[in-house]
Order: sequence, then C-alpha cells, then structure tokens
Amino acid sequence: MSGYQAPTKDMLFVIRDLAGLDKINNLPGFEGATVDLVAAILEEAGQLAGEVIAPLNRIGDAKGTRVEDGQVIVAEEFKPVYRQFVSDGWTSISQSTEHGGQGLPYLVGLAVEEMMQSACLAWSICTLLTQGAARAVEIHGDAALQALVLDKMISGEWTGTMNLTEPQAGSDLAAVRSQAVPDQDGKGYRITGQKIFITWGDHDMTDNVIHLVLARLVGAPEGIKGLSLFAVPKFRIDADGAVGERNHVTAVSVEHKLGIHGSPTCVLAFEGAYGYLLGELHNGLACMFTMMNHARLSVGLEGVAISERAYQLALTYAKERVQGNKVGYDAAVTIIKHPDVRRMLMHMKSYIEAMRALAYVAAAHLDRAHHHPDKAVRASEGARLELLTPIVKGWCTEMGQELTSIGLQVHGGMGYIEETGAAQYLRDARITTIYEGTTGIQAADLVGRKILRDRGAALQSLIADLKATDAELERHGDLLATIRAALGESVNDLEAASEWLFAHAGANADVAGAVSFNFLMLAGTLTGGWQLARAAVLAAERLAEGTEDPSFYETKLVTARFFAEQALPLTGAYRRAVESGGDATMALSEEQF
Amino acid sequence: MSGYQAPTKDMLFVIRDLAGLDKINNLPGFEGATVDLVAAILEEAGQLAGEVIAPLNRIGDAKGTRVEDGQVIVAEEFKPVYRQFVSDGWTSISQSTEHGGQGLPYLVGLAVEEMMQSACLAWSICTLLTQGAARAVEIHGDAALQALVLDKMISGEWTGTMNLTEPQAGSDLAAVRSQAVPDQDGKGYRITGQKIFITWGDHDMTDNVIHLVLARLVGAPEGIKGLSLFAVPKFRIDADGAVGERNHVTAVSVEHKLGIHGSPTCVLAFEGAYGYLLGELHNGLACMFTMMNHARLSVGLEGVAISERAYQLALTYAKERVQGNKVGYDAAVTIIKHPDVRRMLMHMKSYIEAMRALAYVAAAHLDRAHHHPDKAVRASEGARLELLTPIVKGWCTEMGQELTSIGLQVHGGMGYIEETGAAQYLRDARITTIYEGTTGIQAADLVGRKILRDRGAALQSLIADLKATDAELERHGDLLATIRAALGESVNDLEAASEWLFAHAGANADVAGAVSFNFLMLAGTLTGGWQLARAAVLAAERLAEGTEDPSFYETKLVTARFFAEQALPLTGAYRRAVESGGDATMALSEEQF
Repeated sequence: MSGYQAPTKDMLFVIRDLAGLDKINNLPGFEGATVDLVAAILEEAGQLAGEVIAPLNRIGDAKGTRVEDGQVIVAEEFKPVYRQFVSDGWTSISQSTEHGGQGLPYLVGLAVEEMMQSACLAWSICTLLTQGAARAVEIHGDAALQALVLDKMISGEWTGTMNLTEPQAGSDLAAVRSQAVPDQDGKGYRITGQKIFITWGDHDMTDNVIHLVLARLVGAPEGIKGLSLFAVPKFRIDADGAVGERNHVTAVSVEHKLGIHGSPTCVLAFEGAYGYLLGELHNGLACMFTMMNHARLSVGLEGVAISERAYQLALTYAKERVQGNKVGYDAAVTIIKHPDVRRMLMHMKSYIEAMRALAYVAAAHLDRAHHHPDKAVRASEGARLELLTPIVKGWCTEMGQELTSIGLQVHGGMGYIEETGAAQYLRDARITTIYEGTTGIQAADLVGRKILRDRGAALQSLIADLKATDAELERHGDLLATIRAALGESVNDLEAASEWLFAHAGANADVAGAVSFNFLMLAGTLTGGWQLARAAVLAAERLAEGTEDPSFYETKLVTARFFAEQALPLTGAYRRAVESGGDATMALSEEQF
Repeated sequence: MSGYQAPTKDMLFVIRDLAGLDKINNLPGFEGATVDLVAAILEEAGQLAGEVIAPLNRIGDAKGTRVEDGQVIVAEEFKPVYRQFVSDGWTSISQSTEHGGQGLPYLVGLAVEEMMQSACLAWSICTLLTQGAARAVEIHGDAALQALVLDKMISGEWTGTMNLTEPQAGSDLAAVRSQAVPDQDGKGYRITGQKIFITWGDHDMTDNVIHLVLARLVGAPEGIKGLSLFAVPKFRIDADGAVGERNHVTAVSVEHKLGIHGSPTCVLAFEGAYGYLLGELHNGLACMFTMMNHARLSVGLEGVAISERAYQLALTYAKERVQGNKVGYDAAVTIIKHPDVRRMLMHMKSYIEAMRALAYVAAAHLDRAHHHPDKAVRASEGARLELLTPIVKGWCTEMGQELTSIGLQVHGGMGYIEETGAAQYLRDARITTIYEGTTGIQAADLVGRKILRDRGAALQSLIADLKATDAELERHGDLLATIRAALGESVNDLEAASEWLFAHAGANADVAGAVSFNFLMLAGTLTGGWQLARAAVLAAERLAEGTEDPSFYETKLVTARFFAEQALPLTGAYRRAVESGGDATMALSEEQF
C-alpha cells in the first residue's frame, strides 16, 4: 500500500497567505500561533499521519468491525494509535484551554484534521465526532455535567457520538420518536428508543462513550420543537467521575457498508438508559446544531482529504507505470507523459487545491466569527461562514466523488483491483455527500437559509469580494488574463443565477428546491476558482519581487490557469440549469417516471 | 433485493422510431424482424431477465469466485441459468444462421443484451466475450477450426475469452511478450506466457473454454506488427470435436475486485499450450479488432444497463420512502415529491434514455454497415458507426459512474449500506470506463482515428444530420423551442471545437491528446441530446395527430426538455476546455505535481 505524505507546503501557503493567519493570530488567545509554530505543528502532525496513522487505513478496511455481546470490536491496531494520539494532545488542538484544550485556531486544527482524514478516514471520524460532541457539552451542558465528562471528551480519553437518525427520521428530524422520561432521582432522564447510522456509536478503544441523543420528553410537542438533547454515557459515571456499571444502551449491530469499514456504524438500542439534559427542554435541535458548522466543514474537508490521498496514489503510479510510446522518446514512457493522464492529474491537483483553500478560508471565518472582539466583525464573519459552510460541505464532497474516481481511472485495470488501494478511496469518499446532511440538504440550506432568508446580503458581500479580486488580477495584465476572464464570467453567472433566484423563488415552493443543487455547484466551482485566482495573484507578486521558491509559485499560476480553463466554464452550465427553473423537473406525474 | 423490470416500451420505441427498424428489416436476411416479432422477443427476454437472471445479481456479488486446483469455481446458481439461456438460444440471437445463430439484427440483439446486463452484469459479460470471440473465429478462422469450435461457441455450449493484457502490456499491446512456436504436428502452435485481467478466463459452467490469445511467433517483429492471434482451448479437442485432455493453460488466480464479483477475472498461465492460428501470422491485432466495435458498443451499453438498474432501484425507493413535509400536504410525503430528489431522478431518466438511444442508433448503423447491399451505403454507415463507437463506449460509461452514484444518493444513508443494493451498481459500473479500452483510449480513437484521420468527413456528415434535426424542431415552433435552442448551441460548440482541433492539432503531438477527453464528452452529450430531440419531434407529431398513448409521448417531451436545459449546456464548458488547448495540461514538470 502506498503511503501518505502530508502536503504541508500547500497547507502552510493556504493558512498563511489565503486564509490570512495574520488576521487570526491577532485575536485574543491566538497570539502564539505564529507562522513558525504552525509550520512546526504541521510538520509533526504530518509525520504522525504518514508514519503512524496511514498504515491503519488498509487494515481497518480489511478487518472492519463486529459486535460481540452488545460490544463493538474494532481493528486491534487502531487502539495503540488512538492512545498515542490522545496522549500527544492532538484531539484537543483547537479546543479551549479552559478544559484542557490547546486553544489553537480552528484554522490550524483543520489542517491537522485533513492529515488525519487523508491518513485514515474511518479512524479520523471518531475524533471529529467526539470534539463536536464536546463542543455541545461545553456550550449547553451545565456545570455538573461538564465536570463529569468534558475534560475527558476534550482529551479524547472518552469519545462522543451524535445520535440523531432513526429508521423513520433521517433528513427529517421532526420524525424522531425516541422518548425520555424523568428519572426518579429528580435530576436525570431515562431514554428509550432505537437510533441507527450512529458513527463510532460503540467501540472498544476507550473506557466510556458519551452519546448525545435527540429524544422527546413524554408529552412534548410533535415536530422539531419537541426535541431535547441528552448526554447518555455508555457506562454510568459516579459522582467522583469514575466509570461504573453499564448503562442501558446496547450496540445491536454494525452496518455492512460500501466503505469506511474501519468505522463502526451502529444500531443502538436505548432501553431506559440514564441521561443528562443538555441545554433547555424542547431546544435539542438548536443544541445539536451548535456543532453542525464545525461538523459540516469537517466533512467537506473529508472530500479534500480523501481526494488528496487518491491523488498521491495516482501520481505515484503515473510516475512509475511504463506504458506506450511518445514522440521524442526512444522507449516506452511513464504514463504521466501522456497528455490525457496529465489532464486527469491536473484536474485532481487543481480541484484539490481549490477545495482545500476554500475549506481553510471558511475555517478562518469561523475563528474570527467566534473570537473577534468586535461584535460587528463577528456578525459579518459569521454570515460569511454560514454562507460558505454548505458550499464547502456540498461541493467538496461532490467533487470528492469525481476526484477519487479519476484517481482510480489513472490506474487503468489495476485501479479496479482492491489491493491497489484506489478503490478504497472511492468507496470511503462515497459517504461524504450523505452524512451530516446530504448534498440536497446543503443545497436547500444554501439557497433557503443562507441566501433567500437574508435577501442576499451575505451573497452580495461575497460578490463584492470576488470583484475585488478581479481588480487585483487586472493589475497583472496578460499574465493572469486567462484567469481573470474566466473568473469574471463565472461571477456574472453567479450574479445572474441569484437575480433569477430572487425573481422566481417566490412563485412556488418547488422552484428553489429544484434549482438549489445547480446553484450550490455554481457557487462551489466559482469560490474554489476564486481561491486559486487569489493564489495566482500572490504567486505573480512573489515571482515579480523575486522568491526563493519560484517553482512553487509557477505551479500555482499553472494550476489556477488549468482550473480557469477547464473547471470555471462549468458555471455557465450550472447557471443555465438554474435559469431553466423547476418546470421540467416537476412536470411528470409519479407514474410517468 | 429489488427486481428488474425490462424497459421494453422505451426499447421498442428506440428500435422502431429512433434507430429505424424499417431501414434494417428491409435488408437481406432481416425481413422477418417485424415490429411485432421484435416486441415479442423483448417481452420474452424481459421476463427471463427479470425473473430468472436478476436474482443472480446479488448472489454473484456475495459469493464471488475462487480457484481450486487450477480451476475457477463460480457461484453454483449461475450454472443452471446459463444452461437455460443457452438451450433457449439467447446467446446466438444476432449471430449468423450459417453456424446455428438466429440471424436477427444486432439492433435487436443489443436490446436483449441490455436486459441481461441490467439483470446481472457480472454474468452477462461471459456471453458478450463468447460472442465476440465467435465472431473473430467466424471471420478469421479456417474451415477446420470453425468446424471444431464455431457452432459450440455461437450456441454458448463453450465460452470464449479475449487474452490481450499482460502485466507490462495493458493499453499498449505492442508490449505483449507471450510467445508462440510451431508445434511438431506442423499445424498448430505452442503458446507460452502469462495473461492477466482475463474476464471469464476460466469457470466451471461449460465443458470447454476457447481462449483467443495474442502472442508473438518466435522471431516475429517487435511491436504490434509482430502479434498473431491464436485460439487455445482449455481442453484439447479431438478431430471429431470431442473434449479430450487438459491443455497447458491454467488459472493461476482470480482478482479481488471492487465490483462484478460474480465474474472471474483471471491470471492465466500458458505453458506450451496448444493453439490454432487465426487469420494470418503477424496480423493478430487486426483480427482482434474485428470484434472490437461490437465489444465496445456492448460495454458502452453496460453504462446504460447498469444505470437503468440503478434508476429502477432509486425510483422504487423514492416512491416508498416517507420523509419530510411539503407545502400542500398534511403529513410527511414520499421523497419523490421533493424537488431535489426529482431532479436526481429526472437526471438519471433523461441521461439513460439519451444513452440508450445513442447506443441503439449505433447498432443500427452496424447492421447497415454489415448487411446493406450497396457498398457505398455500407461505407458511409461504417464510417458513422466508427465515429459513434468511441462516443458510445466513452460517454455512456463515464455517465454510468455519475448515474449509479446518483442512484445511491437518492437512498441517503441507506444507499451506503451494501444490503440496499445501490452500492453494488456503483461498484459494478466502475470497471466499464476501463475495460475494452479506457475512456482515454476511446477519446484518442475518436479524435485521432475517427476525426483527424479522415479530415473530419465522418464528423461533417454527423453535423449535417444534426442540422437536419434542427429544421424538424423548428417546424414545431414554441413547443420544441427550448430544445431547439439548446441543441443549436451545442451543435455550434461541436463545430467550433472541431474547427479548433483542425487548426491546432498539428502544432504538437500533445494537443489532440490533451483535449480529446473533453471533445469526447462534448460529442457524447450532444449526440445523446440529439436522440432525445429526435424523440421529441416524433412525440410532437404523434401527439398532434392523436395517439392512444399520450402519456408516453408527453413524457418524451419533458425528458428531452430536461436534458436540453440541464445537460446540453455542458457542451459549452467542454468546448471551452477544448479551445484552451494543452498548454496548462502539459506545463508542469513531473516534480511540480
């Protein structure tokens, strides 16, 4: 199996130059996050990811998980690596210092997270979920609950889960039926119900698991306004924090999935399990959503990470595999010399860099939205974050399907053989457009909540920034003219599509839904290309002023141009699909399908 | 597991109205192929596919294949079904009557083939390969060899294989190293070498397997001009045709693949195996290519077939799964009522119908190219067939990736669970862009051999036909105006891209290679949309003159419009990618990747 080499150089470039580390580490608490420190962290995390975690990837895929006596067993090899990861403090890198976290910007934590996802997606999800759950406990849990569980969740000594889905309640959480009744102790609750698709819902890597469970207090209203959020430990916790007897929650089974085999996806049965209320009664969905922005950015990042791993494997193969002749060469050549193979590699490379930059830029907005001292800045940064989140989640994971598939294609017939490893990336990537809200849910969120609801205010601010980049591109004349022209057309496409949306979305309820996917893909392609254009401007400046690393910046110019030529034109097609509206989509009767 | 219902109505519409059965069954030998007969054949084949073969699909996926003592064992359940298939005469439906075939048009055989592929792709490939090999024996084998093997191959009593690939010789067959030496009997040859990726290379369903093997006579020239084609039986054949002792060819192993688990993909070791020469010495590649047009159309058809199966499963789920509310409904609704789910289903439906029509139209050209009494017609039909073949193979299989992936997406989290079945279609489909020539090979074939080499003659003829459809669309005014406008723009895109190609492809050898994929996708999207536009014209006529089945034709209008609105605009993006040339694709040094 191929290894993994963390792309620390590109990550550092994005963190420093595109996401603007200097605008993050001027915020209270983040001052220590200098470029040098970040570079050192990336180096160390990259080594861990490449040398210790990456070898788990194939093992987890082959071994999968199983249930024995209501207990999930994961690959034996996962455990010592998880313990090392926890003891080295990586889980809590961007958690607050108040509960033992390291208090670094989320922007830095995201880069570390990308490495772990690239190294072993199935394994990495456990920490993603734990830290999301910890955040919910930190924000909504009372002091007593926090004292019991929070430090251990942040450190990773215990893990956490999100228990939302039930057989009849997937995308629509209003249909959740799990019930809670007050416990006779007058403090806690007893939860009963069945939850499905619970990622890392049980395992044998830690002494306890804290489940955050959406359930309905007996007598609560129907719909989402009757949902409350409870923290339900796998093992009861004594007043002194020690782990006691088993709680009444059991892993019934694990799913047989297409990919991420190393990650247990559980059916959990709650049968009067003792739980602690988080936040207020009947406000559970809001509590759950406090971790959603993080989680959705993280899953969007998975699209980047798995594509990066697939790219590295394909690139290695393309540089080694000898096949076919080429004018100017005496003997058969490595396939990277064939133009169509290069096209595939350039396609992967340029999309990955665009996706990474977009995700990291969103993370920088999150840091500023949470930490900036000025409330107005927090609000505007928060609005941009909210606009970008469904784009990062939806677009990066949709593209992850295409890119991992191309990675397999580069291998030809070898790609179809499981031992090659390319197929696993495709299989693993396939979940990312589904969990934490399908692409359809992201698209509805983007168009409905993030654009129509604020009457396009956040979108207009984004468009203004896009136009500012146009002015910067213009300053570099012919060098960046191709990129500028393509970006300009794509900005026009976004403006036209959003004008169409505001003019037509009110007509009937199906219009926004029918065009939302194409709108999201337009926005993703454009904002991704925008990041590459910004990188090209910086590269042109560095090259003009003289740099020690011209090759890196020349590469950025080429990558941005390739994306401008081959990807940005898609926005015209997406725009036309949007402007066609929903009539043809909705025209058939169900029998006519 | 879901079943399969053959889409006989759409198939018959395409065969009769788009592919022009009346221009096929006026050819010598095909007169009996009336619409009624074809309808009856489709009905019967559809029943077989749905009731007998479809249940094999999941079984083959779960059981896979294995090697025991040099013998491949396939799923036990495959064998009786294969025997019934053979005894009912389905294998030979479009083979010539001279050797026991049924002599029906390939156009009809293709529809039957689509059903078998939809029902169980892994199982269906065995017959695809056997009939391709039989065709090569029929055309290139001498009378003695034909007497020994041909009738049994055509009937399916014995199966056939194509042995091309070796570890160092995949897309580049010039690198084939397998050797042949004359046998001491003065008639045959002894073949030695290792072949890999041999689909259905061995199995236990029949008494014999006839391998067609590319090898190099000792002392033959290097490169493709030194290759000869040999028929190597698994068991030696006596003069009276009886199966004798094992020949020196052994199944060493079967691959562990992403999909088509039911189909054994073999490593075969030839160790002085006795073989018969096919055609002339050193002309093996040409002999092999006589089956390539058929085989490539068949694999293109697999893209249609597996997408159709995925669509049926997704549609069933979307009509049954209740999730979420909708304005105007009191209770939660089935998800087919949600616009984004409908968009996915319409996307699948319209692409599948476009792809099917394109593949069947190509098959009709094949029938006329082979059977028309007028040599000039045979030539022009052959040129069109050659132009369309890489488009059908490349575009339909590339789209098959997207469509099976969407099929999974419609299921949400359930799609990721293997038991649902949607994931298998994605896994199975993934090989189709690779075997029988990767998409890159198809694109190079299209741009190099089929367009540049005849200076665009075949392409110009296609464009003339496209413009004839424009005139027909115009006659229906507003009703088809959206479709006409979109098709017109896409025709412009094809013309512009081909003008660009002729102006720039001579500049350096990499240009054509770098733009070929986008050119192929442009041509596929356009020619697929063209078929739907032709269907819309017919539908408009039928509706205007009154029809007993208005719902069917109204559906055709909607499907064509949806494709015109959402798919045809992609040709603009492909065109711009073509017109960008190969500079950015080729600019990086290998170290800069």
